[in-house]
Parts: sequence; structure tokens; C-alpha cells
Amino acid sequence: MTTLKIGVAGVGRIGKIHLENILQHFPNIEIALVADPSEEAEKYVLGKNLNFSNDYNNIIKNPDIEAVIICSPTDTHANFVERAAQSGKHIFCEKPLDLSLQTVVKTLDIVKKSGVKLMLGFNRRFDPNFLKIKSMVDSGKIGDPQILKITSRDPGPPPISYIKVSGGLFMDMAIHDFDMARYIMNKEVVEVYSRGAVLVDPAIGDAGDIDTALTTLTFEDGTMANIDNSRKAVYGYDQRLEVFGSKGMVKADNNFPDNHQYFSADGIHGSLPLNFFLERYTTSYLNELEAFFKSVQNGEDLPVSGKDGLEAMKIALAALKSVMEKRPVWIKDLR
Amino acid sequence: MTTLKIGVAGVGRIGKIHLENILQHFPNIEIALVADPSEEAEKYVLGKNLNFSNDYNNIIKNPDIEAVIICSPTDTHANFVERAAQSGKHIFCEKPLDLSLQTVVKTLDIVKKSGVKLMLGFNRRFDPNFLKIKSMVDSGKIGDPQILKITSRDPGPPPISYIKVSGGLFMDMAIHDFDMARYIMNKEVVEVYSRGAVLVDPAIGDAGDIDTALTTLTFEDGTMANIDNSRKAVYGYDQRLEVFGSKGMVKADNNFPDNHQYFSADGIHGSLPLNFFLERYTTSYLNELEAFFKSVQNGEDLPVSGKDGLEAMKIALAALKSVMEKRPVWIKDLR
Amino acid sequence: MTTLKIGVAGVGRIGKIHLENILQHFPNIEIALVADPSEEAEKYVLGKNLNFSNDYNNIIKNPDIEAVIICSPTDTHANFVERAAQSGKHIFCEKPLDLSLQTVVKTLDIVKKSGVKLMLGFNRRFDPNFLKIKSMVDSGKIGDPQILKITSRDPGPPPISYIKVSGGLFMDMAIHDFDMARYIMNKEVVEVYSRGAVLVDPAIGDAGDIDTALTTLTFEDGTMANIDNSRKAVYGYDQRLEVFGSKGMVKADNNFPDNHQYFSADGIHGSLPLNFFLERYTTSYLNELEAFFKSVQNGEDLPVSGKDGLEAMKIALAALKSVMEKRPVWIKDLR
Amino acid sequence: MTTLKIGVAGVGRIGKIHLENILQHFPNIEIALVADPSEEAEKYVLGKNLNFSNDYNNIIKNPDIEAVIICSPTDTHANFVERAAQSGKHIFCEKPLDLSLQTVVKTLDIVKKSGVKLMLGFNRRFDPNFLKIKSMVDSGKIGDPQILKITSRDPGPPPISYIKVSGGLFMDMAIHDFDMARYIMNKEVVEVYSRGAVLVDPAIGDAGDIDTALTTLTFEDGTMANIDNSRKAVYGYDQRLEVFGSKGMVKADNNFPDNHQYFSADGIHGSLPLNFFLERYTTSYLNELEAFFKSVQNGEDLPVSGKDGLEAMKIALAALKSVMEKRPVWIKDLR
Repeated sequence: MTTLKIGVAGVGRIGKIHLENILQHFPNIEIALVADPSEEAEKYVLGKNLNFSNDYNNIIKNPDIEAVIICSPTDTHANFVERAAQSGKHIFCEKPLDLSLQTVVKTLDIVKKSGVKLMLGFNRRFDPNFLKIKSMVDSGKIGDPQILKITSRDPGPPPISYIKVSGGLFMDMAIHDFDMARYIMNKEVVEVYSRGAVLVDPAIGDAGDIDTALTTLTFEDGTMANIDNSRKAVYGYDQRLEVFGSKGMVKADNNFPDNHQYFSADGIHGSLPLNFFLERYTTSYLNELEAFFKSVQNGEDLPVSGKDGLEAMKIALAALKSVMEKRPVWIKDLR
Repeated sequence: MTTLKIGVAGVGRIGKIHLENILQHFPNIEIALVADPSEEAEKYVLGKNLNFSNDYNNIIKNPDIEAVIICSPTDTHANFVERAAQSGKHIFCEKPLDLSLQTVVKTLDIVKKSGVKLMLGFNRRFDPNFLKIKSMVDSGKIGDPQILKITSRDPGPPPISYIKVSGGLFMDMAIHDFDMARYIMNKEVVEVYSRGAVLVDPAIGDAGDIDTALTTLTFEDGTMANIDNSRKAVYGYDQRLEVFGSKGMVKADNNFPDNHQYFSADGIHGSLPLNFFLERYTTSYLNELEAFFKSVQNGEDLPVSGKDGLEAMKIALAALKSVMEKRPVWIKDLR
Repeated sequence: MTTLKIGVAGVGRIGKIHLENILQHFPNIEIALVADPSEEAEKYVLGKNLNFSNDYNNIIKNPDIEAVIICSPTDTHANFVERAAQSGKHIFCEKPLDLSLQTVVKTLDIVKKSGVKLMLGFNRRFDPNFLKIKSMVDSGKIGDPQILKITSRDPGPPPISYIKVSGGLFMDMAIHDFDMARYIMNKEVVEVYSRGAVLVDPAIGDAGDIDTALTTLTFEDGTMANIDNSRKAVYGYDQRLEVFGSKGMVKADNNFPDNHQYFSADGIHGSLPLNFFLERYTTSYLNELEAFFKSVQNGEDLPVSGKDGLEAMKIALAALKSVMEKRPVWIKDLR
Repeated sequence: MTTLKIGVAGVGRIGKIHLENILQHFPNIEIALVADPSEEAEKYVLGKNLNFSNDYNNIIKNPDIEAVIICSPTDTHANFVERAAQSGKHIFCEKPLDLSLQTVVKTLDIVKKSGVKLMLGFNRRFDPNFLKIKSMVDSGKIGDPQILKITSRDPGPPPISYIKVSGGLFMDMAIHDFDMARYIMNKEVVEVYSRGAVLVDPAIGDAGDIDTALTTLTFEDGTMANIDNSRKAVYGYDQRLEVFGSKGMVKADNNFPDNHQYFSADGIHGSLPLNFFLERYTTSYLNELEAFFKSVQNGEDLPVSGKDGLEAMKIALAALKSVMEKRPVWIKDLR
């Protein structure tokens, strides 16, 4: 297999994950340039003996780079994607493409015209548990899926400074669950009803966001999904999923650091779930890159498209509108 | 302890459960008369060497009877309760009191004036699992409860003939879950949003009912509950509950006939949940009668009041209205 | 069905279990007489409106009594069984028949000649979990059973006074496991190797007994069983079983009072197993009596025979001898 | 940290595991030379751009190499270890050192005199589950450990050709469990009783080995361990451990590829355990190398010593002798 030359934009928390995965697991991927404005990133990247620039633009300008991995802040995504597309570079971009629906639509249009491949970082699709659920649903094991239930709770809220630029709970956090709902059910959502509340920290409310939400999705055929989100589960990262259908039910529990059970005089005790998304979704981050590289190098289909990003975003916007207007919102009525 | 004389009205499926429980477990309860219009019931009751009448009225007319257990059809409940109350007899009545909100309000008013005790048969409150959850919530183990999730699925739909007179999925089936939500959360519901569908059997739709529903309850303080109902879970009776709070989470799984695990070359296998409410809730039926008799005999507080029946009913009516009008419905706006 | 007249000898802890079960569940069984020398028993039995005598002999002397339930102390069993057999009364006797192998052999001989039915109280054979395991083994689900593992630990040791007359850990406690091993494997044991220790309470050692044991049973075909026993599991009554075979493995876990799971910041927690044999084996006590009465009334085969008692006892004796002589002991070399 | 130069002898199945782990996870370890007589190995190693030789001796002869990883066949271990020790190279060696007790004793003596570090590849000590159990036992969570139970079953037997040179079930397979027993209990074994059988494949018996075994270990203080081994569990690799003590019990279950549960009309189903030691013990292989390198580079204590290898081997020899002579064998009587 011929080597693929890539550029990596942004080496914050998630950028480092991707960088390490590429170095360790993809011998045919050559990291031609890493760009990030921060000094901390510079030191880190140079320690890896990789080419580094403080200017994202240098990735675009490098004609040898065939694909880009975009892990820079959200507000740089759309512009970077457009320019990468116009330069003929394939694109893996962390979600979301942008917080504005218009911008996303416009950007996807540019990508489409350019002919490059664009994959959004909905990494949870590549988690072994959810992949198993997906394959069982697709194989007909549960018959027609009727009710989907997703539990998605973070171990603790991010800093208020992050909350303020995050796009809010639905766009920042629940968007993964909205994508998962479409992915598992293989159907489009037509209506969204969400109830939100500030139960974890009043400062989150002061920042204009909510920290707890319960969402009902209705699909085109009348089947339904329920998603509950909280910014703070004191017992750790809680990521569960259950699909109920005409022929059965399948569900996935959390992942744990070990499987011991301790029996003492006051009860039976076990370990808490893996506490953070970097630990829980280690495998999924690796798998999603593999899928992207396979698609670019071998011409295989992309497992996550730009449209997937757009549809998940619409659900997030409808959920927010539903909370604000205290009524169910139809996807088709957005904008 | 002095003996309490009671009458039992109706010995169908649930009436038999109560009758057997009384005979086996309550030596201080004397069944003075059992009434039921059916011949099958007559044969059954006489086989137990108990006094029998084909006319429910004879229970009311018997001045020795101090308390009644009402297991007759729903459309007889309100009238029977009123007359029993007016005769000074304490009342245990299967839910619902009536399908009409006005009738229920009027009946509860009569009961209140009469001074007799009235307990509704919300047996699930007495299930060991849910009692455990309740005690953990009440003791503060999970901090402030924020999200309640109830799964309540039947192993199969009742006959269409029953569906037609049942009051519908919300009034007949989900009403137990609505009561459970108030019981666990210790708060009143202010808003209800339900999505319903006919996914199990079109004949249920033809009968004017739904067979699948997803309901969001919002409580007075902004906390929330989600309830999913299906008339048909092919793997059996699915009754689970989970409460998430500021300091932890507690959940209850189904009950099983045994706890074996079988490991074969094609997977790990276990028994399905207990398949029907009579098996799953055996203990709760016994416990609820014990609570009723204790209240009547020892003057202890009733654990389920007429108001509990009324509030659960309001939620059911709001859920139905929500499905019909495709919008959230406020409890205070009912009628 | 015609009524069977029985006598119950001994109403200590286990006698009361049987008495209550008979009164509540077997309408065709008439308790003609209960005998027990203690005053406490007298008060208890008279409170049930049953005929009572302080003399066991009066059961034997009553010609109307067709069957006896023997729950009196172990040292009365053999003599009572012999006389009941000679009086033509069918016998249900708590284990063990006697602590002396010779006496047991002699007693069984007398029973055999008399033609009455004798069932030993190996109640665990009737536990729903072990019945499930048994049926799966018998149906070939695990292929040829190769290794059996039994965990059998009490929540706490009995009083030293009881230990002294109990016959020791193997005869008093492990004998249930030895019977279970034969029952599940459907084979005879040929060799026993046990290691015993005093790890719980030195007073048990002073009383000439052990409180912890690990036993290897070898069956006639070379397959094996392992049993571990302790007089004190601080987390409650621990009764588990696992059978490994050529086509799979099946195991049974403990029973629990509820199935809640509590997730707090310091772990996941669940309830301890049911704490005592009366709670854990409630159903098995009922089932074994049903089997006995069916056999007597309908002529069905007895599910536990006198020979079963004898064989389990031989294993217990071999285990004790193995501990004493620090070597494996062959069953055929006993006596 | 300064770079450590190592040589790797043997790149069969386990050698490749170590090689990949070193390349991916230990940037400060330089693989100076890989040696293996096979052509397949040559191609594999050259593909990694590493120095290769067909002659193990070239590792010893290279004065720059500071440490060796020995993954060559068992019959080369002792000689290689001796020569590496005499050349002043630290040694990580796959178990066993040799099949002869005398050779092992002699080799350890040479190593001791040389002053180099020698670590045996008892990788299971580094498995996250067993590490958790170990830490809980060491911290006193279960009080005094009294009974240890290990289940260790392979998914299928190795080829007969391998069986013939393996040293037998105890030396090849159960030796890991014998080491684990000493590791968890922190005590020396004084007596061994094993029962062995050929239940999986008669060809294994023909090759002079057994395929199924049940072993009782007695420790110096009278506490006990039970180990059951089978060469074939049709449901996959079964590696469980349970320690029972005066204050509680702790156990570890198997690892699974996912944690889904599927509920269909005929039962509840889950995935089988990870099917092979390479998958189950992935993390432990990485952790053991890390421990070795830390010890060599930072002067930390070795977590597994040559004596650990010797003691586990003695238990294996005693187990074999016990099966042959049908009696318990004391470790002190070996030789």
C-alpha cells in the first residue's frame, strides 16, 4: 500500500489522541505537518520528531498533503473544511462542522462540488458495543426496532468557559446521541420534544445553557427514541443503549476497568464505569481513523457522511427550540 | 387481634389472587361473603367452603361486613365504592376507580364524607425491588432525584374485547407507571408529553387504542421522568426502573425464575424474566393486602390514598390528550 | 383426592417450616397429631388448633396415621423410622438417619422389609436453581459432565453446643453437597480427598470439629467434583454450583432479596445474598413435601431414597477419614 | 531516560507480541538484534526494519546488548539464560526455565552469581483483574485469605506434537495457576493433591499427558486453594479467580469482547469470553515488559523472580507425582 500524506490541525486533547493512534497503528500514513498556534502543542509535536507549524494555513498550502485531520476549535472548522476541499484534500473533521445551520449547508455544498471525501468524527459509531448492537439490529435479530433508549451522562461538567462557546448541551454533547439514534434505527427523525433543566450547577444556567435533558425523538414511521443527558453523573461516564423491537431487545452496558466483585458484610461492590470518554472510547477513536484511511486509500465508502453531521445538527437545533418553546418541533419546520 | 369480617366482590383473575392470599396468610380476616355473577366463580368459591352470592349487593346489605375488597369489573367500581362508603365499610378497590374524571372526583368526595378508608390497588408500590428503590431515594442515597426512567412492557396484548373496555393503554396499563413515578419522586407531575403508536397489532389501532408509547413527565421542580410502554415484549414481562440523582443512581432489574447461566459454543444464555404480572408481583399483592388490613385493624396510615388514584388518572388523561393533540399537556389545564 | 392423615414429630426450626407449609399448601393432608416434648412447641401447636402430644410415641401408636414427618433430634431418627416402618407408616425424615453407618444400614434394611416409603430431607434437590441445573445436565445441554464445583458456605457457625452433637462439618453441613454431587452427576463417588482446617473459631477445633474444608470427589468414570465449605461467610449464605462438560457449562448463582444496583461515587453496590437457609430454600422445602405426598398418595416414585442418604453419609465418613489420615480414601474401603 | 539496547531471541507467537509491544510502547528501548532460525521470522523482522540474525548466539556475542527477551523454544531457555547471565545481560525469559528441576536450580545459581536481573514471564500477574484482586487481598479487604479458587480452562487443546514436548498439562498450562496461587495468597504451598483425567481427547492420553485436572494446594498455614484445569472449554477461554477470607470475598470474572445482552423469545444471550490468551492477556503482556524495563532501567525491584519460577515448577512436579501415585505429595519431599 502506498503511503498517504496527511496534515493534522490542532493537537489539543482529541488531536493528541488521533496523533498517537496514527503514529502507533498506521504505518502507511505519513504525518507531513502538524499545525497548532499554541506553544504547548509545539513542544509536544517536536518531541515526536514531526514537522510543526504555528499556522493552520500551512497545511492547506502544502501541495503534498492529501488529507487533513481537523481537531482545531469549532469556529475554525467550516472555513478549514472549505479550503481543504478547494485544495482537493480529503477531510476528517471533528464534530460539529459549525454551530450555524446555514454555514453547514453551505460548507457541505462546497465539499460536494469539490469531490473530496469528508468524514465527521462521530466516533461512537465505532465503539465495539454499539457496533455489536448495530449489527444485531441490521441482521433482524430484534425484528422491527420500535423503541430506542439512550443514556448519556458525563462524569462532570466542562468549565463554564467551555460551556459558553460549546453551542450548548444539545449541540456539544447530545449530538453524539442524536447521531447514534439515526445510525441504530436507520431512519430519519421527524419530530423532537425536549425538556431541559439546570439541576447540576446554576452557573451553567447563568451561562445560558442547561445541564440535564430528556428528549423524545419520533421517526418517520412512528417509532420512537428517548435520550436522557446529564452533565454530571457522580459515578462516572454513563453510556448505555437499548433497542426494543418486535422480535427482541438488545442492550449495551457501560465498560469497566476490571470485572471484580467484592462481597463484604455490608454488600456486594464493583468498580465504577470507565470514567471518561478518552478511556471509554479508546477503541472507537482508533476504528474511526482506520475507516477514514481505508476510504481514502482504497476507495471504500465513508461510514459517516457530511449529511450525517447535518441531520444530527438539525435534531440538536430542534431540541433546543423545543426546550425554549415548550413544544414538540418538526425537523421539516426548521428554518 | 380481633377478627375483621370482609366481603370480596369479584373473583376473576385478580380476585382469586386476593382470596387465596387472605385464606393462606391472614388468619384474623374472616371472609363473610364472596359475590360474583358468574357460575365459574360460584363453583370455585363453594369449593373453598365460603359463603357465596351471585349478587354484589348482598355484600353491601350485610351489616356484619366491615370491609370490602372490590375486584369486580371497572364499570362497577365507582357505584360499589359509593355504596360501601355510605354503609360505613372500609374499601380496597382495584384500579381504576372509574374511567371518568368527574365520577372519580365525585366518588372520592363521597368517600371522604363517609370517613371510611379507601385504598387503591397500586400493588407495584409493594414490590420488594421498588420498595428498595423507594427507601434508597427517601434516605437520600442518591441525593436529589433528577431523572426517573421506567420500562414497562407486557409479554403480550390482552384480547381486543378487553382492549375496547380497558380505557386504553394509558388508563389500563401505564397508570401503574404514572403512580410509580409520583411514588418514587415524591413530587407532583405538572406536564405530560406522550407519543403513541400502533406497532404491535393493527387490530389494537382499529379498536381505538395504541400499543406502544413513550411518555415524558415533568415534575413541579423541573425534574423529569421517562416511561416507555409496549403491549408486547416477546421476551416476557419487562418491569425496570432507574432513578438518577445528584449523589448517585439506583436501579432495579426484572425478576427471574432462576439465576442459572448456560455457556455453550454459541454464547452465554440465561432465563427470561418471570413472564406475567401474577408471577412477578406475587409478593406485592400479598404486601398490599397486609397494608390495607393493618390500616383498618390498627389504625395505621393507608399507603395509597384515593388522591393517589386521582392523580395517576389525571396523568393518564393528559397522556392521552397529548397523543391526540400532539403537544405537551399541563395537568392543571385538564378539564 | 382422598385425605392423607399424618403425624409430625418435632416442631423445632425445621418442623415449623414443614408444619406451616402443610397447613397453607396441602388441603388434602390432615395433620392428625403433632408431638414434641417441649412446652414452647406445645403452645405453638395448640395455637394452630392441632392435636398435640408431648410423647413422640403417640404418633406411632395412632393407627389412623398413615405417614410421619420426622423433625425430631438426630439421635431419635433411626429408632423412630424403624418403629414407623414396622407400623406401616410412610416416612419423611430429616437427614441424617443416624451418625453411625451400621445403624443406617440396619434401619434401611428394616424399612425395605416393611414396604413403606422412606424419603430423606435433602431439600436442596428441590431448589429451583439446582433443579434447572439438573434438568440441563440430564438433557445433554452440557454434554458429558466432567467437573462439578460446589461452593457451600454458611453465614455463621452454629453454637458450640450444637457443633458437639452435629456429627461434624461433613456429616452436618457438607452432606447436602455430597448428595448434590451424586444427584447432579448421576454417578457414584469412588474416592474422597478432603483437607480441613480451623480458620473461623478455635472453639470449633476445641470441640473436635473443623470449620473450613476443601474436598475432591472422584466419580467412577474418572470425572471429578470440588466442594468448598466454610462455617462463616461474612457476606451471607453462599450456595453456588457449576457443572462443566464436553459441550458447555452451566452454573447457578445465589438468590438475593432484591435485584437493585446502587451507583455512588465510590462504586457499584448490590444486596447481599439471602442470609439463611430458611430464606434461601423456602421453595425447596415446599417442593420436597409435595414430592413426598405425591409419592404416597399417587404412587409416584420417591425422588430421594434411603440409599441416597446412605451414599451421602459414606462420602461424609470418607471425607472425615481423609482429613484425619491425610490421604485419599476409597468409598469401597469404608468399614 | 537513556535508551536500553536489547536483543530478542525467538519471534514465534509470543515473541511477536513482545516485539510489537516494544515497538509501539517503549520509545526508550532499542531493539539492537532479533534472532530466530526460521525464514518466516526473518521476513517478518526485516519487514520491521530491524537487525536480524538466524543465530541466537549473535545476541550473546553483541557486547552492546544490555538485556535479552527470550521467546525461543523451552529447550533453549536454560542454556541461553546461563550465557546471557555470564555476559552480564539482564534477562526476561518466557516460562518455564526448563523442564528439569536440577537444571533450573543450577541455572538460577549461575544467574545469582552473575548479578544480572532475571524475570520469568508469568504475565497473568499483570492482568488488570488479577492485579485488582491482589491489591484488595493485600490491603486486608477480605481479612485473612482462607480459600482460593482458580478456574483455568483453555478453549481447545494444542496440537499433539506440542503436547508431547510441552512438559504436560501441569508444567505447561497449570503452572500459571500455581504461580497465581502463590502470588495471591502470599504464602508457600506445602502439599499438593491432584486428580487428572483424559476426558477431552484420547490422543492426549496416548501422548502420555492428561487434559483435565483438579488440584488442591495446601499452604503452610493450613489455608487451601483449588484449581481446575481443562484443555477444552467449548465456550472459550475461561479464566476466573475467587478468594474467600475472614472479612469478605473477592472474585474476578472473564473478559468479554463486548457487553451486549440480547433478549429473544427463547432467552437472554450474551457474548462468549475472549477466546484466547493473546486477546485476554493483551494488557498483561504489555505490563510485564514495562515492569521488566523499569527494573532494569530504574533499579526497581523485579515483580517476578527466578525463585517464583522454581516454586511454581515444584508445585507442577508435585501435582504430576500426585496424579501418578494417587496420593498427596509434600513439596519438601520432592527430589
